[in-house]
Amino acid sequence: MDENTEKHCYLLIRDFLPAHHTIKIKSGEEQKTLETCSVIWDKMTSLNMDRHSLFINLGGGVIGDMGGFCAATYKRGIRFIQIPTTLLSQVDASIGGKLGVDFKQFKNHIGVFKNPEKVIIHTPFFKTLPYSEIRSGFAEIIKHCLIADKEKWAAIKGKSIAEQNIDDLVAHSISVKSNIVEEDPLEKNIRKGLNFGHTIGHAIESYYLDKPNQKLLHGEAIAIGMICESYISQKLNLITKDDLQEIKNFIYSIYPFFEIPDKNYKDIISLTLQDKKNKDSKVLAALLDGIGKIKINVELTPELIAESIDYYNAEKRHKKM
Amino acid sequence: MDENTEKHCYLLIRDFLPAHHTIKIKSGEEQKTLETCSVIWDKMTSLNMDRHSLFINLGGGVIGDMGGFCAATYKRGIRFIQIPTTLLSQVDASIGGKLGVDFKQFKNHIGVFKNPEKVIIHTPFFKTLPYSEIRSGFAEIIKHCLIADKEKWAAIKGKSIAEQNIDDLVAHSISVKSNIVEEDPLEKNIRKGLNFGHTIGHAIESYYLDKPNQKLLHGEAIAIGMICESYISQKLNLITKDDLQEIKNFIYSIYPFFEIPDKNYKDIISLTLQDKKNKDSKVLAALLDGIGKIKINVELTPELIAESIDYYNAEKRHKKM
Repeated sequence: MDENTEKHCYLLIRDFLPAHHTIKIKSGEEQKTLETCSVIWDKMTSLNMDRHSLFINLGGGVIGDMGGFCAATYKRGIRFIQIPTTLLSQVDASIGGKLGVDFKQFKNHIGVFKNPEKVIIHTPFFKTLPYSEIRSGFAEIIKHCLIADKEKWAAIKGKSIAEQNIDDLVAHSISVKSNIVEEDPLEKNIRKGLNFGHTIGHAIESYYLDKPNQKLLHGEAIAIGMICESYISQKLNLITKDDLQEIKNFIYSIYPFFEIPDKNYKDIISLTLQDKKNKDSKVLAALLDGIGKIKINVELTPELIAESIDYYNAEKRHKKM
Repeated sequence: MDENTEKHCYLLIRDFLPAHHTIKIKSGEEQKTLETCSVIWDKMTSLNMDRHSLFINLGGGVIGDMGGFCAATYKRGIRFIQIPTTLLSQVDASIGGKLGVDFKQFKNHIGVFKNPEKVIIHTPFFKTLPYSEIRSGFAEIIKHCLIADKEKWAAIKGKSIAEQNIDDLVAHSISVKSNIVEEDPLEKNIRKGLNFGHTIGHAIESYYLDKPNQKLLHGEAIAIGMICESYISQKLNLITKDDLQEIKNFIYSIYPFFEIPDKNYKDIISLTLQDKKNKDSKVLAALLDGIGKIKINVELTPELIAESIDYYNAEKRHKKM
C-alpha cells in the first residue's frame, strides 16, 4: 500500500484480514521503478516470505502493477491478490495480468504477464478519491464503450460523470475487458484493441512524465489519445464525421484542455515508436472501425499523428476565437 | 555474450547467424544483478527491439539466467533462445525455464519461470573451457545419476573425468532433467528432487560469494552439498553406509578439498533458510532415497546440517593424520 491507501482503504479492511505484515511505499507514478521494487523485494526477504506466502496489493495502478511484478518475480513467483482502490485500476489495470514498472521514460517497459489469484472490487473506496482520479478512470470506461458496446456508448455520451451509474459502468468495463483478455491473454490479436487511444495517449503521457507542473493523469492523456486516434479513424473512413464529432464533444465536456505545443510533436511522435504493439519500427495502432468495433495493426505515419494532434489542439483555438 | 563467449564461441557461430546486433557484458557471477539487467534492458531499448525480436543468450549459466530474465521481462516478454556454452549450463541451467538474477547475497532470488523457444547444445564449445569449469558442470551430471539412474551411477563412479564419455553424459543429463521438469514445471513436487545437494550447497556457495580469495564454483559447492546431504540421507536410513562411502570417495577423487571452519557454520545454516523450497521457516531438502531415487520435503534441523558439514570436513582431518 501507499500512504493514501493506508489511510483511506487499509483501515477499512484491516480487521477483516488474517494475521499479516504491511509494506508501505510512497504514492505516485514516479515511484513505479526498479529501485522501488528493490526496496519491496528487500522487505519481502526480511519478512522471510517464502513461495507459499500470499502478497496483497492494495492501491491503484502503480501498486497493482509494481506489487504484482514484485510478487511474480520474488523467488520466481509467489501468489498475489489485487485489491484495486481507484476507478482506473478497477476498470483497467487489475484485469488482464499485465504487471511491471516504468524504465527510463518508457511506461511499463519491464514486466511480465501473470494473473493474480483473485481481484477484489469494492467501489466504496471511491468516496475518498479526488475527482481528478475519477475522471482519469472514466477515460477507460469511455474506451470500453467505444471499442465494444455501441449501445452503452449511446447511453453515456450525453451525461456528465455525476449523472452516470458508476457501479454499473465498473461492472460493464470489467466484463468487456475480461472477455477480451480471456480470448487473447498475451495480446497477439484482439487484445490489442484495448490499446485504442493509447498509442498516442501513452506517448503524450510519457512525454510529460518528467516535465514539472505539466502532470497529466493517465486517463487525461488517454482522453487526448482517443480524440487523436478517432480523428485518424475518421480520416481512414472507419468512422463517420458525426461519430468523430460526438467523441470529441463528449471528451471535451469532461476533460480540461491541455495544449500540446507544435515544438513537442517530434518528441511525442518518436515516443510512439516505443509502443509495445509495434513491429519493424512501424507504429501500429488499434483504431475504431465503427462505434463498438476495432481494427488492429493499423500503421500510423508521423504525418498522421501530427495532424491528429493538430485536430485536438484546433478546438481550443476555435474556442479562443 | 561476455568477453569469454565472444572470443571462444561467438566467432565460431557468427557467420551462421542472420543479421543481428550483439550485447556484451562482463563475465562472472558477481555480474548477475539487477544493475546489469538495467544495462541490458537499456541496450535492448536503444536497438529498438520490439515484441517480435528474438534474443539469443550465448554463454554459461549467468548469461542464460540473466539474459533469459531480461528477455522474459522486456516489454513483458520477448522470444529467446539459449545457447549454453559451458558443461554446467548445458546439463542444468538451460533446461527447465528457471531465469533470474541474484539479489543481495541471495542466489536467483528474483526471477521467473519461462521456457526458451529453443536450446541449442554444441559440446565442441568445451574445448576452450577451463578444467575447473568442466569439473563444476560434472557435479550436476553426478547429481542426475544419483537421483534418477542407479546404473549410470555405477558406470561413472569408478572413473576420472578424463575417462568419461562426456557427450553421452550431457545427453543423459538433459534427458533426466527434461523428463522431470516436463512433469513438474513449476517445482510443486518431483522437480524439487533436482535440488539434491543444493540446499546446503547453495548456502555454502552464497556464503563465500563475497569472500575474497575463497571463490567456490557452483558445482564445487554442490559437490560439498551432495556429500552433506548424502550424510543426512544415510543418517535417516535412506541410503546405506556403503552408498555414502562411495559417494564421498568419488566426489573427493574429483574435487579439491575446501575447508569450512566451524565459525562459519552459523551463517551458512541461516542462509539455508532462504532456500526457495522452504515452507514456514522450515528448511526442506530433497534427499536420496536409495541410489536413483529421491525423497522430497525432508526437514533439515540446524543440528543435522552442522553435523553433515562436520562429516565433510572430517575427511580432511583424517587425511592430515
